[in-house]
Amino acid sequence: MTRMTEFEPKHFEMQVKDQIAVIRLNRPDRKNPLTFESYAELRDTFRAMVYAEDVDVVVFGSNGGNFCSGGDVHEIIGPLVKMDMKELLAFTRMTGDLVKAMITCGKPIIAAVDGICVGAGAIVAMAADLRLATPEAKCAFLFTRVGLAGCDMGACAMLPRIIGQGRAAELLYTGRSFGAEEGHISGFWNAIHGADDLETAAIKMASRLAAGPTFAHGITKTQLNQEWNMGLEQAIESEAQAQAICMQTRDFERAYHAFVGKEKPEFEGN
Amino acid sequence: MTRMTEFEPKHFEMQVKDQIAVIRLNRPDRKNPLTFESYAELRDTFRAMVYAEDVDVVVFGSNGGNFCSGGDVHEIIGPLVKMDMKELLAFTRMTGDLVKAMITCGKPIIAAVDGICVGAGAIVAMAADLRLATPEAKCAFLFTRVGLAGCDMGACAMLPRIIGQGRAAELLYTGRSFGAEEGHISGFWNAIHGADDLETAAIKMASRLAAGPTFAHGITKTQLNQEWNMGLEQAIESEAQAQAICMQTRDFERAYHAFVGKEKPEFEGN
Amino acid sequence: MTRMTEFEPKHFEMQVKDQIAVIRLNRPDRKNPLTFESYAELRDTFRAMVYAEDVDVVVFGSNGGNFCSGGDVHEIIGPLVKMDMKELLAFTRMTGDLVKAMITCGKPIIAAVDGICVGAGAIVAMAADLRLATPEAKCAFLFTRVGLAGCDMGACAMLPRIIGQGRAAELLYTGRSFGAEEGHISGFWNAIHGADDLETAAIKMASRLAAGPTFAHGITKTQLNQEWNMGLEQAIESEAQAQAICMQTRDFERAYHAFVGKEKPEFEGN
Repeated sequence: MTRMTEFEPKHFEMQVKDQIAVIRLNRPDRKNPLTFESYAELRDTFRAMVYAEDVDVVVFGSNGGNFCSGGDVHEIIGPLVKMDMKELLAFTRMTGDLVKAMITCGKPIIAAVDGICVGAGAIVAMAADLRLATPEAKCAFLFTRVGLAGCDMGACAMLPRIIGQGRAAELLYTGRSFGAEEGHISGFWNAIHGADDLETAAIKMASRLAAGPTFAHGITKTQLNQEWNMGLEQAIESEAQAQAICMQTRDFERAYHAFVGKEKPEFEGN
Repeated sequence: MTRMTEFEPKHFEMQVKDQIAVIRLNRPDRKNPLTFESYAELRDTFRAMVYAEDVDVVVFGSNGGNFCSGGDVHEIIGPLVKMDMKELLAFTRMTGDLVKAMITCGKPIIAAVDGICVGAGAIVAMAADLRLATPEAKCAFLFTRVGLAGCDMGACAMLPRIIGQGRAAELLYTGRSFGAEEGHISGFWNAIHGADDLETAAIKMASRLAAGPTFAHGITKTQLNQEWNMGLEQAIESEAQAQAICMQTRDFERAYHAFVGKEKPEFEGN
Repeated sequence: MTRMTEFEPKHFEMQVKDQIAVIRLNRPDRKNPLTFESYAELRDTFRAMVYAEDVDVVVFGSNGGNFCSGGDVHEIIGPLVKMDMKELLAFTRMTGDLVKAMITCGKPIIAAVDGICVGAGAIVAMAADLRLATPEAKCAFLFTRVGLAGCDMGACAMLPRIIGQGRAAELLYTGRSFGAEEGHISGFWNAIHGADDLETAAIKMASRLAAGPTFAHGITKTQLNQEWNMGLEQAIESEAQAQAICMQTRDFERAYHAFVGKEKPEFEGN
């Protein structure tokens, strides 16, 4: 077991309180770009999250009015244009590993997106389970603008499942930005909150999830990933097994007794 | 061959008329909970439906202003908390088998949802091909409220394909309810009808489908399931084969001759 | 290498200019039906497109106020009703091969849909990457109307991914038509333009894509197809490889230097 409170990240901020970890990038003056170091440290942090007993839900927040401006042009793109294939693949695998770490960390992740959320930043938001945004949110998969393909860190797999294949294709081919309204209609954002309320709303939702059956939430997250490309009948069998596991938790028993006693269940995540 | 008119279900209601079976749960005083018995009997009924010559379309209707309140707390959840793993898996497989039976029954299923449609009831609605609802419909995947995971009877596979991965994740993690408008916008409900018109509208749509090429409808249903996790190019070959089969039906020939003769085709389902 | 300007299609029109091929069917008096000949020639053209050095983006336009009325009743359906299984399968495979050729041609395809867009015409629009429509666009998957199944040329695989499983099922079972507004809300159409502006808008978007990193666009298209039924983690590794390839293009380097020099990058597609 690990305690995230013992982690002191160097390249981003993290506060852990009441079973909720709030992570945010820490270079608001530059709209929070990602760097080689923050990519790697985020990846390692989400990998450690699997075993963290003091975190049940993660909020990936904004900082200084922006979420993330993506890979830094000077600190990332500059070096990349000089790399050989072995080094390039090591880099793209590291960025992909951040997404893999997020989808397999076992805890729901809520992205709270204010302002700029572009490039790899848009992918980080997309790799979260839920996405809250402000009216000022501006999101773009702008890889094409720097001469790259739309297939970055899983975008061609994830975006079509979230907003549909046609809408995804347009955003990935053009790199154009979309805001609160369009992203809400398409299902990219789960809800819109004013900038002043954004983090409060995210924490509130995180608290609600943290007060729930957190072991079962972890199974929900596992299955959402696990069933991604299963046949429908195989997915149903997989869920029969997964839900049978959850039926042996004490949280299930607690919920039953609370219901019978006309009380609110107190879940403990086991 | 089987005739569904010969079935006399004990744990739900079924009327068969004009090639349409109308099924509804029969405990309106308790908002139509599912029980061990009704799960099993529904499963067996949809399995028999494959061979039924007197049914081409199924309407799964509401009763007394509600669709289904899910697994009964006293009759299902109570016993479950006492079961061992072997018994639990037998139960979750039985519930999953109902969904499998619905998606492989070979006939389009139209859910007509009024009022409460929660838990396993929401899954039954989701396992239908089409979903009509009333302004009073209230749907929730509330497994999390009883300490369980969102992965129940195929929910983590089906819901993301219907309304998108982001919207599905929120509903499955939180268990919150949604109504007519939200569900219509997200694509969960195909159409909204007033409570007084709901069943008429469902029967009308069922009649329209029953008057169509029902053998071909069965192939459409088969392929929607079959192609769930095929590669796109494999799906195209699979459809080439499936449609070639349909081109040897007399319904295809009837349609051609009707068109040439400027008449309305009379399909016979062969 | 091939030059599409050297192609002189007999059964449809094609103009190639500024790296954009504009294709349109050429029987506007009959709302542009497809025939055995135009199917085959379109298939061959999209197959050749892979190697065409003078085309980076394809616009599939309308003609005389309509996009395509689908397989011609007299020239296609008439002969089909007389065919044996071997001949039928050869036909359905040929139509499927057109879709396969479109999704593997390596260049973004923009459908510009005015008026009638039904049957196989709706599939051609669906097999494009992006879809623009006019307020007069009328689209229907009307296979069921001629006694066939909704599974034609990949429809049961593609339509659910574009507009969601529930909406797709209804359109495929009923064959009913939908227009500009419904299709825009569901994500089938990317944008709506007046009939007078439709082709201009399509060409403008095509020009924008053609001015972009076209090698990378080809990789985006490849991955959107390639990842169709991959696991999410496998898709992420696949994208790590694909994007690393793009990072060795000169377009990536050009974009970096343009950014540093505060200029607009000039992409060359290599």
